Amino acid sequence: MPAFNAFYGQSGGVTSVINASAAGVIQTAKKYPDHIKNVYVGEDGIVGALTENLIDSSLESEADIEALKHTPAGAFGSCRYKLKSIDEHRVEYERLIEVFKAHDIRYFFYNGGGDSQDTAHKVSQLSATMGYPITCVGVPKTIDNDLPLTDCSPGFASVAKYVAVSILEASMDVASMSSTSTKVFVMEVMGRHAGWIAAAAALARDERDLGPDLILFPEVTFDKDAFLARVKDTVEKKGFCSVVVSEGVKNPDGRFLSESGITDAFGHAQLGGAAPEVVETIKQALDYKCHWAVSDYLQRAARHIASAPDVEHAYALGAAAVEFAVNGDNAVMPTIVRTGNHPYTWKIGKAPLAEVANVEQKMPADYISDDGFFITDKCREYLQPLIVGEAYPPYKNGLPDYVTLKKHKVEKLTGKDFKLKR
Amino acid sequence: MPAFNAFYGQSGGVTSVINASAAGVIQTAKKYPDHIKNVYVGEDGIVGALTENLIDSSLESEADIEALKHTPAGAFGSCRYKLKSIDEHRVEYERLIEVFKAHDIRYFFYNGGGDSQDTAHKVSQLSATMGYPITCVGVPKTIDNDLPLTDCSPGFASVAKYVAVSILEASMDVASMSSTSTKVFVMEVMGRHAGWIAAAAALARDERDLGPDLILFPEVTFDKDAFLARVKDTVEKKGFCSVVVSEGVKNPDGRFLSESGITDAFGHAQLGGAAPEVVETIKQALDYKCHWAVSDYLQRAARHIASAPDVEHAYALGAAAVEFAVNGDNAVMPTIVRTGNHPYTWKIGKAPLAEVANVEQKMPADYISDDGFFITDKCREYLQPLIVGEAYPPYKNGLPDYVTLKKHKVEKLTGKDFKLKR
Repeated sequence: MPAFNAFYGQSGGVTSVINASAAGVIQTAKKYPDHIKNVYVGEDGIVGALTENLIDSSLESEADIEALKHTPAGAFGSCRYKLKSIDEHRVEYERLIEVFKAHDIRYFFYNGGGDSQDTAHKVSQLSATMGYPITCVGVPKTIDNDLPLTDCSPGFASVAKYVAVSILEASMDVASMSSTSTKVFVMEVMGRHAGWIAAAAALARDERDLGPDLILFPEVTFDKDAFLARVKDTVEKKGFCSVVVSEGVKNPDGRFLSESGITDAFGHAQLGGAAPEVVETIKQALDYKCHWAVSDYLQRAARHIASAPDVEHAYALGAAAVEFAVNGDNAVMPTIVRTGNHPYTWKIGKAPLAEVANVEQKMPADYISDDGFFITDKCREYLQPLIVGEAYPPYKNGLPDYVTLKKHKVEKLTGKDFKLKR
Repeated sequence: MPAFNAFYGQSGGVTSVINASAAGVIQTAKKYPDHIKNVYVGEDGIVGALTENLIDSSLESEADIEALKHTPAGAFGSCRYKLKSIDEHRVEYERLIEVFKAHDIRYFFYNGGGDSQDTAHKVSQLSATMGYPITCVGVPKTIDNDLPLTDCSPGFASVAKYVAVSILEASMDVASMSSTSTKVFVMEVMGRHAGWIAAAAALARDERDLGPDLILFPEVTFDKDAFLARVKDTVEKKGFCSVVVSEGVKNPDGRFLSESGITDAFGHAQLGGAAPEVVETIKQALDYKCHWAVSDYLQRAARHIASAPDVEHAYALGAAAVEFAVNGDNAVMPTIVRTGNHPYTWKIGKAPLAEVANVEQKMPADYISDDGFFITDKCREYLQPLIVGEAYPPYKNGLPDYVTLKKHKVEKLTGKDFKLKR
């Protein structure tokens, strides 16, 4: 069987462990020289395939590829670019085939969340629909943890650990200050559609009851009166209150909290965060001194406090994707299958891309407590094992020694430019 | 010489290492039983002394006191409570003497920043002004790094490390996304009066030029046009721009950026952060997709990424305060004296409280680059050694194993309540 080149791309919002998946793909591909000649990586994901900006992974040192395991963000660049259907946008698919043919690419590995697995699924159909033989395997990744058919998705567990550690620390801070100063701390976390990340903050609360006290989930419509009553009650009982709010929380009118009509001096709508909005609500009703934080990219880039199982999952899924491909699987995605909680054990499974693409795994209703402000024991049982274990990067001069790749480009062969449709 | 009890209190905004100073005081006091019988800790600092809420540190286990070295926030509670002058508020001083007398307290250790050292200084005058014999030593602490006569103050170096690590990670994130998504990331950090913390972010920028690209200091009046020109230029050159803004940055009219006239739907002034304000300014002028973070308490509570020298300083200063006191020094504060940069070496010095109280150590003008948007090499030379070395806490179930003390109260002996004047 002749060997061909492989394409690998990073897609969607990056994570602190997506580069570990890249290392899994690249290092594992080297084990199968009879199948895979070289891994060409798209600069900025599928955009690099369309524009023929391919990075030759074989020209990176082995040490640098190994260092991807501890390097956050997208070392090759990522993109937010969704392929439309072949009917709608045939020219993009023709261009992909043109580039793949020119570079002898017959394997396609795409590393991303729901939208990206949709892209992978569409590419996997090129054989059937356009007669170009390609083996396509998705590699899961999303901090939102909303991919179906997998126990969890790489990126999420590290955000979960970051969020739990951060709210524990900040809750201890506000506890210290509350007698004469700040009474309420509000931390905003990501998760526009699902409350997985917000839920993870709950792991910080133990029998010492430091915090978080209240969690606002996107699954639960914001009930201002009930929330304020709980804040007041908590401050009166404990002296302080620690709150986690998901960016995706909505008002009864269906709008995000962060769009609550705040305007700037010029009357422009101010897209502030949910946290300052929650704080404003508390201040106006209860007049407590509040502090708030919005962790934004800090949470998903925080490789310095990554979860060890997350790093292991990410690498193993990249490696499994290559194994699947060389074994002839097409249009699939490796998954994490949990096999035990005490101790936490897992193995690699396999899901058809057709069943993954565009399906959102919501938080089960029984993961949120009846009052809507916390998680259930069942949710804790699910989340807890995912954050156990640290995977510290090496440090140099006081900072994590993250690698920056050389990114040598593969010579362009198609002789044509391609204009991205946006 | 008969032994007496000691009072120790935590004051002002807490840090990730103030408890290491507490451990230094408590463990060192045990070495001098001929001088110090027991350390009584004020619950919520001086408030605990005034209200006779004293915690018996001898009833904590040795392991728990040892664990203070890796536990953030104020384990005994802190306060924002400044004593007025004796002339203005004699009743507070009389109450302190009443409580100290009742509990045989003749040593006073106060752990805090500028305002707290002023409190310490006032207490140190009790001997002279009110005839009560007390030995008073301050223990420096402030993330703002604005105490004079010391090379740095415990708490600052860990925030510096957190901020530098966080902006490095987030800059790598935005770099990954910039081709099709976010172009600008803005991170807000603390420091209302001095730019030390903002300056520390600059440590993340090396020859790879990942970020931060621009820093907005409270020392430099916000020049909107110059800033926007730099943002535009950076995005055009690099594809993205990473910005750090201090909460203390002011507009030419003297108001904080965060008070720039944003009003909510009801016309209430919205006290948002400086970061969303900077982002709004960029969006309106340049229409770039932006993300922003406000780290707030997360930065000063982040014991998980504390600086090793910071932890060492904090402990050593607590220990030195006790050594000074038992050697008869009064009205002084131990300091950090830098003795070398390559490698970083330091020793303990001594400063009179009279020269510390209410004096702010500003950033020297030659620490900020001529264009006002970055630090100088001289500033980097000062900051760099402070973040080298990690001091990870132990972990349990995926979270730092921070200690919560038992805080057994000392029996009240004065038979009187005291109403705090606020």
